[in-house]
Amino acid sequence: MPPLASGPHPDRLFPAQPETRAVARRLYEQVKDLPIISPHSHVPPAWLVDDQPFSDPASLLLVPDHYALRLLHANGAELSDLGRGPDGPLPLDEAAARKAWRILCENYHLFRGTPVKYWFDTTFADVFGIAETPSARTADALYDQIAEALTRPELRPRALFERFNISVLATTDDPLDDLAAHRALAADPTFTGRVVPTFRPDRFLELGRPDWPGLARRLGEVADVDTGSYAGYVAALENRRRYFVEHGAVSSDHSHYDAGTEPLDEADAARIYAAALRGEATTAETVSFRRHMMCETARMATEDGLVMTLHPAVRRDHDPVTLAHYGHDVGSDIPVGLELTEALRPLLARYGNHPNLHLVVFTIDESVYSRELAPMAGYYRSLYVGVPWWFIDAPEAIRRFRGAVTETAGFYRTSGFIDDTRAFLSIPTRHDMSRRLDAGYLAELVTQHRLTEEEAAQTAHDLVATIPAKVFKL
Amino acid sequence: MPPLASGPHPDRLFPAQPETRAVARRLYEQVKDLPIISPHSHVPPAWLVDDQPFSDPASLLLVPDHYALRLLHANGAELSDLGRGPDGPLPLDEAAARKAWRILCENYHLFRGTPVKYWFDTTFADVFGIAETPSARTADALYDQIAEALTRPELRPRALFERFNISVLATTDDPLDDLAAHRALAADPTFTGRVVPTFRPDRFLELGRPDWPGLARRLGEVADVDTGSYAGYVAALENRRRYFVEHGAVSSDHSHYDAGTEPLDEADAARIYAAALRGEATTAETVSFRRHMMCETARMATEDGLVMTLHPAVRRDHDPVTLAHYGHDVGSDIPVGLELTEALRPLLARYGNHPNLHLVVFTIDESVYSRELAPMAGYYRSLYVGVPWWFIDAPEAIRRFRGAVTETAGFYRTSGFIDDTRAFLSIPTRHDMSRRLDAGYLAELVTQHRLTEEEAAQTAHDLVATIPAKVFKL
Amino acid sequence: MPPLASGPHPDRLFPAQPETRAVARRLYEQVKDLPIISPHSHVPPAWLVDDQPFSDPASLLLVPDHYALRLLHANGAELSDLGRGPDGPLPLDEAAARKAWRILCENYHLFRGTPVKYWFDTTFADVFGIAETPSARTADALYDQIAEALTRPELRPRALFERFNISVLATTDDPLDDLAAHRALAADPTFTGRVVPTFRPDRFLELGRPDWPGLARRLGEVADVDTGSYAGYVAALENRRRYFVEHGAVSSDHSHYDAGTEPLDEADAARIYAAALRGEATTAETVSFRRHMMCETARMATEDGLVMTLHPAVRRDHDPVTLAHYGHDVGSDIPVGLELTEALRPLLARYGNHPNLHLVVFTIDESVYSRELAPMAGYYRSLYVGVPWWFIDAPEAIRRFRGAVTETAGFYRTSGFIDDTRAFLSIPTRHDMSRRLDAGYLAELVTQHRLTEEEAAQTAHDLVATIPAKVFKL
Repeated sequence: MPPLASGPHPDRLFPAQPETRAVARRLYEQVKDLPIISPHSHVPPAWLVDDQPFSDPASLLLVPDHYALRLLHANGAELSDLGRGPDGPLPLDEAAARKAWRILCENYHLFRGTPVKYWFDTTFADVFGIAETPSARTADALYDQIAEALTRPELRPRALFERFNISVLATTDDPLDDLAAHRALAADPTFTGRVVPTFRPDRFLELGRPDWPGLARRLGEVADVDTGSYAGYVAALENRRRYFVEHGAVSSDHSHYDAGTEPLDEADAARIYAAALRGEATTAETVSFRRHMMCETARMATEDGLVMTLHPAVRRDHDPVTLAHYGHDVGSDIPVGLELTEALRPLLARYGNHPNLHLVVFTIDESVYSRELAPMAGYYRSLYVGVPWWFIDAPEAIRRFRGAVTETAGFYRTSGFIDDTRAFLSIPTRHDMSRRLDAGYLAELVTQHRLTEEEAAQTAHDLVATIPAKVFKL
Repeated sequence: MPPLASGPHPDRLFPAQPETRAVARRLYEQVKDLPIISPHSHVPPAWLVDDQPFSDPASLLLVPDHYALRLLHANGAELSDLGRGPDGPLPLDEAAARKAWRILCENYHLFRGTPVKYWFDTTFADVFGIAETPSARTADALYDQIAEALTRPELRPRALFERFNISVLATTDDPLDDLAAHRALAADPTFTGRVVPTFRPDRFLELGRPDWPGLARRLGEVADVDTGSYAGYVAALENRRRYFVEHGAVSSDHSHYDAGTEPLDEADAARIYAAALRGEATTAETVSFRRHMMCETARMATEDGLVMTLHPAVRRDHDPVTLAHYGHDVGSDIPVGLELTEALRPLLARYGNHPNLHLVVFTIDESVYSRELAPMAGYYRSLYVGVPWWFIDAPEAIRRFRGAVTETAGFYRTSGFIDDTRAFLSIPTRHDMSRRLDAGYLAELVTQHRLTEEEAAQTAHDLVATIPAKVFKL
Repeated sequence: MPPLASGPHPDRLFPAQPETRAVARRLYEQVKDLPIISPHSHVPPAWLVDDQPFSDPASLLLVPDHYALRLLHANGAELSDLGRGPDGPLPLDEAAARKAWRILCENYHLFRGTPVKYWFDTTFADVFGIAETPSARTADALYDQIAEALTRPELRPRALFERFNISVLATTDDPLDDLAAHRALAADPTFTGRVVPTFRPDRFLELGRPDWPGLARRLGEVADVDTGSYAGYVAALENRRRYFVEHGAVSSDHSHYDAGTEPLDEADAARIYAAALRGEATTAETVSFRRHMMCETARMATEDGLVMTLHPAVRRDHDPVTLAHYGHDVGSDIPVGLELTEALRPLLARYGNHPNLHLVVFTIDESVYSRELAPMAGYYRSLYVGVPWWFIDAPEAIRRFRGAVTETAGFYRTSGFIDDTRAFLSIPTRHDMSRRLDAGYLAELVTQHRLTEEEAAQTAHDLVATIPAKVFKL
């Protein structure tokens, strides 16, 4: 696929002012080809193990992507017509895949101004050599073009992984996972990439879930530890963390309704744990326990070294009707306000300057950047400001993030980019977007004579290479 | 009145960067003359029925405008010198009108950087052909010039309505209103404009008001339903909504202290209602009842089709002294923080995807745009993001709004512009301001190569024409 | 020291767009040499009394500056290596001073994009004639160059005070302070500057502090009033305020955890006061009392005329370990969310339009600017919006502040710049930064045709000269 004559513009996302744009171009030029470090994604590792061709354009590009599903749903599309069933993505025959694809193309105007359009446009261009805008008119032709491309060997997962120049890819995995896919990849001499798991124990820490007693039991079985007591439960988690560390994991990931971190007395923790096993813990108790476990997680991290990432403050499954029919991750998760200063204080008072703890906090509530997160990360050694996440992982929001964080915490207390995506094919354009935007922000500082161009160039390089490697211990 | 040589600049409000400005100019050119859709204003319909000349510059342009009164008050002016009395605007003789007008002109520097100055400047230029800046020196001359103009036939309300090219104007009306003015306009063959009422029941839903029992009784009288019971009260509201629908209403409007929407059991609602009639309901109960009625209002909307607009989170009459002397709407209403994700969840869980409900939510708390409102409107079919309102209905705030909302919800989940104004003469410049700013924002996306100019032009048109027509069912 | 060939760029901090930059340059030119009004700083007045040479570069420029200490700490430096001991700054021998200085220089990249770098760079250039960027390589040479300069007479405190063109400097002082330094300066015919104290009673209003009963007793002793009763305590505070007024004070300053202002009955206040003297007041009671005293402070201000400044909503000493080892003011103070509309209402209902009260409210929580503070200051005569403070006293944050406040409150309800700094040598560059940024913001309004250049020039002048003089009654 030769480069497109009329594809995405080489100056896209740069500031419009010509002097600033010229600086941005030069800064970007120096980092655009650096390898991708992806310390937090949702790519299924089995894709790389199996290395099978992707089935069809809709199943690959649309069905798993809740960013795209949401706006189509809001505009009236049925999720069942977009390839979703009660247990997640459905296997699609060609008619169904074409129908879903057509809905996307016919409604492409909904995505104007969103990063979803940007990622699609650039992915179509860079991966498939397509420069045409999706529409009712072009839907079938685009489908055919992409479907044909997906049959080619260079569009298989491993070929793309290599072409994307990904030096590390971290997946997100359940504590019960035996990490067979990761083991298979590590053992396969024909695959030389680094793909590491991430320990994601959320549901095991939520004692109020109806399915929690069963989860606790299965955790014990997998860890070969009796989780009938609180001590056993802690040991089982430590055991599974060790297992993940042994299989290359560098971080654990946590997403709960708030950022609370308040330790309990051992006896209180044990009492609530026992009550929860009997299904008798109150909501207040299960919340306390979860906040206690955040402190315990930090304690474990000081021992086994896993980086701890927090993605708090989202009301999951806001729409109960869609939850009942289509399960999770179809677009109805809605952020809520976040408080960090008081919430993190108990944890930081204990471990905030511990040399072995790296705590990276992500937020969708932008008001905490300048008010709480940057001030804390500018003081505590263990704390880093996570880059914009989910809804705010977008050009202007990323610019706001740098504007809100840098003046208080600089660049070197931030995490480096994470793509956090299920959309494997969009990983390069997401990282590229970040590099363009950081080049643009740094160029603005240069044009305002706050940085020399040399300082800016060094910083641009560090943001892509040294900072994520340091923060995620890679 | 020929166009001014030295009036407002044709490029006003466009981005300064020349390439971006050139795109903005072209986009604006295509929408600047489209008719005005004003689905939410506070213009008294009687003005259009009576079509009398406006009395004097101060009574027309200053006295009803709490945006202007507030800053003059803050700077030391007495509201009584600005034409306000205990029951609202006072009838002014020429001396009093000149005095009020002079206070405005002498303190015109207070408004630098505010949209009030912008609206005045452009209204003076476009409506009166005046290019001079108000000041102590020019106060009397300006007064004379405007007073003279107001005697001319082309400055009467109907002539202006036509000249302003308003295709629909929605007023704001009390449920007790017999809508005589609207009926008169509809029946008048010499008036061809479309002026529709809006159902604004706030005070009937606030059971804690001292005057509420009387309001409930009058509601029953007007609806010819016994409001001695909760069921009768609901029937009376439904009745009045029908009356408004029959007289052209397309929406109901709601402004309460928070956005809470939590249904009560029928029995609890009835019990609280009965207690309130006896003056015995607690504050907690009246708040619960109001949140219940928000759900009921949505339920009614699914039945009668009225669009539901929310304008929450303002502490009305913050200053009790001014309230006592001058009543409401003189500038001491102050916004408070807003929470939407949890507050709207009960309503959205029931009706959030109902095809007959359009719920438009406005906020002055900008932090909810990217955190809560855009994510919800990007998923729920019934929910739209209202454009900036009240204090943030201003150039830079509108730019922030687009920046905060678009990347998550795009353009097509927003409401289109509303002017929400008592200042009839400023309606054209307010809509023009919005068109200029949207052209500027779209131009930025074009210059950053995120949209083609064709996509931007289509979007600019939709924002002015198709989107408000769809959202407000016009 | 001649101007540098390669120092800070003359166009620094101006907008990059050439037309806008040209306007900014012209506006700045008109205000850049106006005298500095510094109505809130933390410079020790004894420096000016003693007029001794500063000891060494680290003790002068690094050790007292918690802005710089925090990021070095976050990056791993020990505070003890940065010149801090258990009781604050340590006396440093040359080796220790050089070591601390070297840590700063080696880690100078941490400050890229922060105002700390900007202030250092411009101070080095303007005060010491140094254009080189600090680094491991240049650390010793810079130290030598600055140390040498500090021996020269023109680098003594009084010479700098004069050279900085400071017309008023307000220090921050304890109610127990006898203001000997201020008296000495006032009595000294060889010092012609105006240096006034500021009444900062925070700790005397926090009845829950372990040391409070002792503080109350000492307050009584100094005021020569029996503080064994609430009435005596109020009298003692009034007495000390008068003493400060007699010594030139123009304001009192207040920094508590929230902005609450709720009056108590005299009897309740007396009861809580008595309980606190016995060490028996509850936390809720001491909070109530402090909120009561905010109202009392406003009442006193209406009588003695002291401007009242609020700096609320910071969790002081977030890190208990650092507090235990190094005390206060070393960088672990972290902001929290702020609510003003309800919190200030009781105070404003009483005194919000009193001609003798000037209440200036500062915030680090930027979300309150457009939502609460600008709307209130745009109505209440006594209330002014304080400029950005602490973490957000930085170029882009200051631009955000103007953008968030101006459209609602204009320029004339804001406070004028305050530097709020312990870093004496950075005072000129901080004020200069503010003048550049305001010139840039005004230039944007001119380029967007919202202000004429003449209006902008007048406003730029007022922001530096007439506004702070009016707000702080100077």
